[in-house]
Amino acid sequence: MKRLPKYIHNSQGTLWLTEDERDNLKISYRIKEVLFEESSPFQHVMVLDSFDFGPMLVLDGVVQTTSKDGYIYNEMITHVPLSVHPRPKDVLIIGGGDCGAAKEAAKYGSVERIDLVEIDEVVVKASKRHMPEVSGNLSDPRVNYHYVDGVDFAKRQSAAYDVIIVDSSDPVGPAQQLFEPAFYESLYRALRADGMMVCQSQSPIFHGDIMEQAYRRIGRIFPYSSLYTAVVPTYPGGLWSFTLGSKKELPAPERIRFDKSALYANEELVRRCFSLPAFLRERLERRPTG
Amino acid sequence: MKRLPKYIHNSQGTLWLTEDERDNLKISYRIKEVLFEESSPFQHVMVLDSFDFGPMLVLDGVVQTTSKDGYIYNEMITHVPLSVHPRPKDVLIIGGGDCGAAKEAAKYGSVERIDLVEIDEVVVKASKRHMPEVSGNLSDPRVNYHYVDGVDFAKRQSAAYDVIIVDSSDPVGPAQQLFEPAFYESLYRALRADGMMVCQSQSPIFHGDIMEQAYRRIGRIFPYSSLYTAVVPTYPGGLWSFTLGSKKELPAPERIRFDKSALYANEELVRRCFSLPAFLRERLERRPTG
Repeated sequence: MKRLPKYIHNSQGTLWLTEDERDNLKISYRIKEVLFEESSPFQHVMVLDSFDFGPMLVLDGVVQTTSKDGYIYNEMITHVPLSVHPRPKDVLIIGGGDCGAAKEAAKYGSVERIDLVEIDEVVVKASKRHMPEVSGNLSDPRVNYHYVDGVDFAKRQSAAYDVIIVDSSDPVGPAQQLFEPAFYESLYRALRADGMMVCQSQSPIFHGDIMEQAYRRIGRIFPYSSLYTAVVPTYPGGLWSFTLGSKKELPAPERIRFDKSALYANEELVRRCFSLPAFLRERLERRPTG
Repeated sequence: MKRLPKYIHNSQGTLWLTEDERDNLKISYRIKEVLFEESSPFQHVMVLDSFDFGPMLVLDGVVQTTSKDGYIYNEMITHVPLSVHPRPKDVLIIGGGDCGAAKEAAKYGSVERIDLVEIDEVVVKASKRHMPEVSGNLSDPRVNYHYVDGVDFAKRQSAAYDVIIVDSSDPVGPAQQLFEPAFYESLYRALRADGMMVCQSQSPIFHGDIMEQAYRRIGRIFPYSSLYTAVVPTYPGGLWSFTLGSKKELPAPERIRFDKSALYANEELVRRCFSLPAFLRERLERRPTG
């Protein structure tokens, strides 16, 4: 009998992945097949073909992105800053090993270079081979892969990028550094005079403290900042937040133009993602106490 | 030792509810305490105090609404039609036993009567007693409770209501009838000449066929119809759809006014919920084949 990868169990002839990271909520996905499994120097990497979500990228037993809905997150973390910036040429993506943000960024004719800095080459390899719906099986010559630490990479850059996208995992373990003021400061220095950064800033409903902290920290370093949301069906909480930090004033939403072909994003959505629910607007407008 | 309610299991000293309705996805909630349990003539009713979502209403083992996020659904199914209608006086709510939609409707000074038609009195009793965050513990004299079948009730009405809200569960079992053309036709007759109805029309991502069917059916009966979305964190799929059917032309979103105090809804959100993701707009604009 073939050995089962860790994190997978067999229940009455059916394979299941049960996410174990949360104390009070457990989600189990029924699995058709293990498409990929490898322990990299950084983590345990799998691509699992699931019944409800198609192929899913799973790191250390936690679902990161799925073929069914991964495009929503990748489109919204990429197209908002790239539409807001008047003419993005050089783009840096930190994290984003599923290649989805790079795939979306490659839709911009003005973009000349996309540096993808992902510490784990195995994630890129698995995503390209087994999740082409998400990664686009990217072979665009403008994309340069750097398999190094994103914090170190960012520190060494100076006025080199127009847009920086921080596509990180949750702020636990190594990704914690990607939510620290020192990191945001290095992004500030890595950006040109009209540059901007965006990061995923977690669920406003379930991680409101982390979201608010990211928003406040970015707001202290960048003269202009703004928060927007999108729905991410397979992330607990559904509603997800993204924070923009910009060196130049951000345009009013009505002035944003967007004409790329996408599954979720369109011009209306890219403008209206800045309309926040009442509880969220109130939380961000409150005078920070810290 | 106290008997555990069905659907609840004890694992190493901790109580869990595992939703069993879906074949390929199982969600388990860690439970602090069973606040209410009763088998009504219609279903098994519980209110469970959960770690992550606070008190949750659970019918036949399936989570219906939670104290943590129930307000989003209830605000969006209620405030959109009540803001769009120029002067709603008589409101009919079909289903909605958690009383959340009635609580929101009671915020309108113009509303003189709210008929809440919920077949299961036990659901209303449990929600009022144990989920005041959702139900508001409603004692507004304008609310009339009718513990009868919603389909029968609607059939007997004629030009009696300004707004009808169909707050149903999923279209399986008895709720199936609430998605049938015959039911939508009875709602048409139950509405005044400038009346409108709204129903929850499921997840665009996971129940796209049901959503499209509801939208097409309502569009064949009502001269004006429109679909809008909101995020509902504890429903699988996160993104949720609602369909409006109206006898009178609907205003452009920019003309909608909203000034109620709410947690999720504000004027921007009530206007912009009609901005649909690209895949959804394309699906609805496609020529129907059926």
